[in-house]
Amino acid sequence: MPSVKIYDTTLRDGAQAEGISFSVEDKIKIALRLDKMGFHYIEGGWPGSNPKDLEFFKKIRHCPLRHARLAAFGSTRKAGAAAENDASVKAIIDSGVQVATIFGKSWDFHVFKALGVTLEENLAMIRETVAYLKSRGLEVIYDAEHFFDGCKANPAYALETIRAAAESGASAVVLCDTNGGTLPAEVKELVEKARSVLGVPVGIHAHNDGELAVANTLAAVQAGAEQVQGTVNGYGERCGNANLCSVIPNLTLKCGIETIPREKLVHLTDLSHFVSEVANISPNPHQPFVGASAFAHKGGVHVSALLKDSRTYEHISPGEVGNRRRVLVSELSGMSNLLYKYKELNLDIERQSPEGKRILEDIKKLESQGFQFEDAEGSFELLVRKTNHGYRDPFILEALRLLVEIKENTPAYSEAIIKMRVGDRVVHTAAEGNGPVNALDNALRKALYDFYPCIGSMHLTDYKVRVLEEKDGTGAAVRVHIQTGDGKRSWGTVGVSRNIIEASWQALADSISYGLLKGDHLARNGEEEKAVNGKKPAGNGSLQTN
Amino acid sequence: MPSVKIYDTTLRDGAQAEGISFSVEDKIKIALRLDKMGFHYIEGGWPGSNPKDLEFFKKIRHCPLRHARLAAFGSTRKAGAAAENDASVKAIIDSGVQVATIFGKSWDFHVFKALGVTLEENLAMIRETVAYLKSRGLEVIYDAEHFFDGCKANPAYALETIRAAAESGASAVVLCDTNGGTLPAEVKELVEKARSVLGVPVGIHAHNDGELAVANTLAAVQAGAEQVQGTVNGYGERCGNANLCSVIPNLTLKCGIETIPREKLVHLTDLSHFVSEVANISPNPHQPFVGASAFAHKGGVHVSALLKDSRTYEHISPGEVGNRRRVLVSELSGMSNLLYKYKELNLDIERQSPEGKRILEDIKKLESQGFQFEDAEGSFELLVRKTNHGYRDPFILEALRLLVEIKENTPAYSEAIIKMRVGDRVVHTAAEGNGPVNALDNALRKALYDFYPCIGSMHLTDYKVRVLEEKDGTGAAVRVHIQTGDGKRSWGTVGVSRNIIEASWQALADSISYGLLKGDHLARNGEEEKAVNGKKPAGNGSLQTN
Repeated sequence: MPSVKIYDTTLRDGAQAEGISFSVEDKIKIALRLDKMGFHYIEGGWPGSNPKDLEFFKKIRHCPLRHARLAAFGSTRKAGAAAENDASVKAIIDSGVQVATIFGKSWDFHVFKALGVTLEENLAMIRETVAYLKSRGLEVIYDAEHFFDGCKANPAYALETIRAAAESGASAVVLCDTNGGTLPAEVKELVEKARSVLGVPVGIHAHNDGELAVANTLAAVQAGAEQVQGTVNGYGERCGNANLCSVIPNLTLKCGIETIPREKLVHLTDLSHFVSEVANISPNPHQPFVGASAFAHKGGVHVSALLKDSRTYEHISPGEVGNRRRVLVSELSGMSNLLYKYKELNLDIERQSPEGKRILEDIKKLESQGFQFEDAEGSFELLVRKTNHGYRDPFILEALRLLVEIKENTPAYSEAIIKMRVGDRVVHTAAEGNGPVNALDNALRKALYDFYPCIGSMHLTDYKVRVLEEKDGTGAAVRVHIQTGDGKRSWGTVGVSRNIIEASWQALADSISYGLLKGDHLARNGEEEKAVNGKKPAGNGSLQTN
Repeated sequence: MPSVKIYDTTLRDGAQAEGISFSVEDKIKIALRLDKMGFHYIEGGWPGSNPKDLEFFKKIRHCPLRHARLAAFGSTRKAGAAAENDASVKAIIDSGVQVATIFGKSWDFHVFKALGVTLEENLAMIRETVAYLKSRGLEVIYDAEHFFDGCKANPAYALETIRAAAESGASAVVLCDTNGGTLPAEVKELVEKARSVLGVPVGIHAHNDGELAVANTLAAVQAGAEQVQGTVNGYGERCGNANLCSVIPNLTLKCGIETIPREKLVHLTDLSHFVSEVANISPNPHQPFVGASAFAHKGGVHVSALLKDSRTYEHISPGEVGNRRRVLVSELSGMSNLLYKYKELNLDIERQSPEGKRILEDIKKLESQGFQFEDAEGSFELLVRKTNHGYRDPFILEALRLLVEIKENTPAYSEAIIKMRVGDRVVHTAAEGNGPVNALDNALRKALYDFYPCIGSMHLTDYKVRVLEEKDGTGAAVRVHIQTGDGKRSWGTVGVSRNIIEASWQALADSISYGLLKGDHLARNGEEEKAVNGKKPAGNGSLQTN
């Protein structure tokens, strides 16, 4: 089976993305995870460009990689100087890596405009830098910056630069579409051209400015490239780099090309979420292969066919990449979506049963009011259980009062007073907050903590408000969506009302009720309390949103 | 110059995306905008599948499209029945469109599994549905669902289905990669195969499950496809559809293929933001061509080269698609935008004047807090005038108190108490409302009516809330955007705070202040009062929203 090497640059090119700033610890965590996934090369940084990357290379020596080869990035030597005296080249050697990845210019326009040197001097810079690092015992990978643009402008010169690198000892020449604007057909043609003049393997480094980075990478492999550079989730400057979370399954599952060990592929979804977690970037639900919506089905036609055979509307089986199928409940969907959901919840509800009909009616009624259950599986399950399975609310609201005061030159003040029944007891308490919803959240947690200490581990991770438009605006309502997590799982809940406080309350109450239901936290004995390590909230809960 | 027709399905396939739920008004707004952009076809919905789409087609007749042809989507007739008696086919005719887009099965596996009919009956369903709609005077576009999967499994049959559609009168046959897993090289080959058996133009409808929808679309056009289906921002089920915001500039700027009128291309970035705003989905900053980061440069090497020549690190000029370059270390571009705005407002403010510098600083500070003035021209102009031109506030808030009460089995109660200075007088009053913001709006109007009766003619037409994400969530704030109209003009205002009530107040106060400024309504004499035909609001103002 043909194979390609996976070269990850999340820690270097990925870190160029607007909004990403990895700490040294972050970088080490990610490097170890990529190593476990079976990636062949991990580019840790550019030691000559910043102290953080220098520190990374120092620290990573204490937790060596098991499989991957660690690479440090750098440029060809400065014009008019010797490679062995170049600070950037030295920094690579000092970093203690096995692999040096050196970028140089292939585009004559760049040689003149950006470097301001002669074409001959640029060739010398490439030759001498590669040869020197090779002589110091490193594997040298040569990144040909702007190769495709260069090859369109002055093919003879662009080819001469990569030949210079190969002849000086580079183990591979990686053709870079630095500006990201090349089309797949051009990539294929120019990769073939490059291969025809080289005796070493060729690689591809694509950017996504034309939304074609994955396609360009596949085109290069089709043309014989043996190394693929990219980043997890496609993070990178401007529109990002080639997304390895799409490149790898496309190559493995569709092109029959060996990449990472086949048994590692089921960890791909986890890897994607892990890196987005470390980068503190919300995962894109629509991301191919690994996104939460990648195998989510909304249309009733699709769902009824899926129930018969999943291949009808899925290009691969979601489990192959560690993802899972989700069936969404919405106005576009019908009874088949509901039946599918019941099965998932292990509920034995028949299409024609009174419960079945009642739930469908309830859902239709709520949806016509503006509820949306497709990303609110918590509220959906509570609704079904309330209709069907003798579910008991963990708490019942008697009254809620909310006060906001805004005065000239004084910070706004928000206070919530809450009275509810928990079992046979009545709790009456109050809390402040950053805003009214935060005050409400704090009061609710304060009221419930003694009964359910585990709520200390539940955190609101997202809060969304959507104003629903209706005829003449008179009946308009707001929909509030809340996402909650407890470290192990994450769930969505929803509320709708003309009153934003009431809608927030509904979503908030559901979020806690569902957390209690799923966590089997309903026991109220002392043992349970001790087992839970949550802190008691006191007017300072987790919803800081408004 | 070769050309392809742009067929937009944002309103139908785009609405299948998880998290998107367009109202009828939303759909009409988007349709009119797409029409203005010069799109050739706009698919408005599936009238046979839900009442919302039915209503859309009814309403859109009152605001007819100028250029685009409006299409309604539907399936081939049900098995064993006549096309003229099929409810879904009827719904298309009743919707009054010029174009019917009919999807049918090309994959034998689907014919058996999903439809449960014979291959022959499926062909009859295609033939009769297309022929009947054509006989009723409609242009019929045939969407060949799962064409690529079908053509790999049973090419003879797949080709027979599309031939059946073409021979029955379809004006074009659109080859659909419904499951989104086909590779570009396969697309190219199978599009060529399809074209070889058809006498009508071929189109492409690609999904993004392999992160290849744009590439597959380009591959199809390269193989001779003359129609391209997709959605704005690539919205759509699972991983989305082919993103027209990338397809169009790739075809126009790189492949030399005519799509929308060339002079419309500069509105592409605006279109993308407009649709994400209506869908209430945060724009993806890394989106190719139109994203805020698409031409944002972070690395020092890149920036210094860019200063010499922008082609060094940009694949196209950002202005060609209405986007702009952002150099993340410099604010120079911000100042040019401001100077442009001053000119629009007839304000004589120099770049280097103290006012000019102060406004720039204020705006930078406010933007870092989450303010966005792009669609809040009211708040922007007030800000500038407050700094520059001796502007006097028409009212000043002293204190505001808001109370919400929710009790078991009782409708929620909202009350606002407000105290403010108007000129040399103090007003202290209170009002109820449907929700807290409505109560606030009512109280404000009640307090001001005697001074400025013309506020009776100002109506809030839109109210939007966006929760702003920040690292760690602790500093998160909400942005409220209000749109107001007085029958003659419409203006937007904005407020930002951790407290949604405070943010709403800011936007609300600006909306009234700006209305007074523009309407020259500041005179308080009796004549003016009589001239205005507004009703005195009494706890029943126009903001019914929450």
